[in-house]
Amino acid sequence: MAGGAILVTLTYDGTDFAGWQRQPGQRTVQGVLEDAIAAMDGARPDKARAASRTDSGVHAEGQPVAFDPVREIPPDGWVQGLNRHLPDDVAVRAAEPKPRGYDPRFDATGKHYRYLILTSDARDPLLRNRTWHVGRRLDVAAMARAGAVLEGEHDFAAFKAANDERENTVRRLDRVEVVPGWGGRDDVIAIDVEGNAFLKNMVRIIAGTLYEAGRGRMDVESVRALVALGAGRASAGPTAPPEGLVLVSVSLGRLRPGEDR
Amino acid sequence: MAGGAILVTLTYDGTDFAGWQRQPGQRTVQGVLEDAIAAMDGARPDKARAASRTDSGVHAEGQPVAFDPVREIPPDGWVQGLNRHLPDDVAVRAAEPKPRGYDPRFDATGKHYRYLILTSDARDPLLRNRTWHVGRRLDVAAMARAGAVLEGEHDFAAFKAANDERENTVRRLDRVEVVPGWGGRDDVIAIDVEGNAFLKNMVRIIAGTLYEAGRGRMDVESVRALVALGAGRASAGPTAPPEGLVLVSVSLGRLRPGEDR
Repeated sequence: MAGGAILVTLTYDGTDFAGWQRQPGQRTVQGVLEDAIAAMDGARPDKARAASRTDSGVHAEGQPVAFDPVREIPPDGWVQGLNRHLPDDVAVRAAEPKPRGYDPRFDATGKHYRYLILTSDARDPLLRNRTWHVGRRLDVAAMARAGAVLEGEHDFAAFKAANDERENTVRRLDRVEVVPGWGGRDDVIAIDVEGNAFLKNMVRIIAGTLYEAGRGRMDVESVRALVALGAGRASAGPTAPPEGLVLVSVSLGRLRPGEDR
Repeated sequence: MAGGAILVTLTYDGTDFAGWQRQPGQRTVQGVLEDAIAAMDGARPDKARAASRTDSGVHAEGQPVAFDPVREIPPDGWVQGLNRHLPDDVAVRAAEPKPRGYDPRFDATGKHYRYLILTSDARDPLLRNRTWHVGRRLDVAAMARAGAVLEGEHDFAAFKAANDERENTVRRLDRVEVVPGWGGRDDVIAIDVEGNAFLKNMVRIIAGTLYEAGRGRMDVESVRALVALGAGRASAGPTAPPEGLVLVSVSLGRLRPGEDR
């Protein structure tokens, strides 16, 4: 036994999951994946390891997850087999071999998240569970200006959940782009955020802050001050709801020249 | 009693409906809408009249529907009230007054449909019920060329369902556009089709035909021949599944100068 690890890329609709992480009595992505692995491998895996521990309701287009199987099954066999065993709301997009014990969390050099805001007055059945329905027009240019001042390396202390106790709150965002017309819809605004690492709820607080900018309750200078002065959580916008958020992709193991993790 | 009609614009997720039209023992969009109207109006409406009778599984972003209520409730009251009574998978986007008996089907001067194709190898939980999962790469340029030859006024006899018995099969398409990258996804191709009127399953057969072009089994000249020679149904591509189709919008009452309906 004891071959290498398998790294899979997962896509899931987070609506009916209590997030990634296995919890007693809850339906979680980790739980259903480990069940599917066990069905193929004949034994429960030690633990499936994700690059990002997404919250309840948050979706993923590309979540890297590694596990150490007992049986030697080629990567393509894992893709086919897991997709037969997984429920409708999770699927494996790809698989590749990695050294045993490989953990994508420690190999992640960048993450791309997208947050979707629905501005129409009425709720939208086709976008329920996928968007934050704010029900009002927003000033996209003002949102874009507020997003741009968050790009670069800053202290994001104002953009972390109250229960995130990490002391180092400096992160680098490579892209905070506000794109109207997502999916051919003139009432959907996408916020694309890419960076090297994220604090808890950071993208959802960025979305909530850009929403405040878009409705004219926060100007670009106030947003700039949030990161320039290392302001506290209370100064930023609200935490936008989880259903608008999707983990688009995670870059693994490709550090930039001269860069430490 | 007997004020005017109310014209509403509906959005729905067609997944759990047996199409628009009321049928005994089936859950239909017309059925749940008429139930919601009855809950507000105190009486069942005569009949709710849609611009397009969408099939089972087909979605709508903007379906115009008219009905003749007994009570005098302002349009905004209908929007708010119906959205409280309708289930999660249907909503009213807007409402306006119309003359009693108004039927959007006879006032429709143009329709815009969008068909989504998913090309990734694996199924995608976030796009299930919204896309046709073909599981192979397609040549988008070849699809675009094939789509372009369908634009204009042609005999679309090859593009109608076998059980559509209309004799006049000449229709005018103003736009057949193939757009890769829908929703920021490099594995989703959108086909936007706009025209004055459509035969049964016409957009789904267009999607199936462009799919054949995209996988290299039909060239642009064969597609051109389908409309140039008034070919039969068997010559065109397969009828693509309903879940990839959405009725985006319907233009009402705006005939072009010099044009008859």
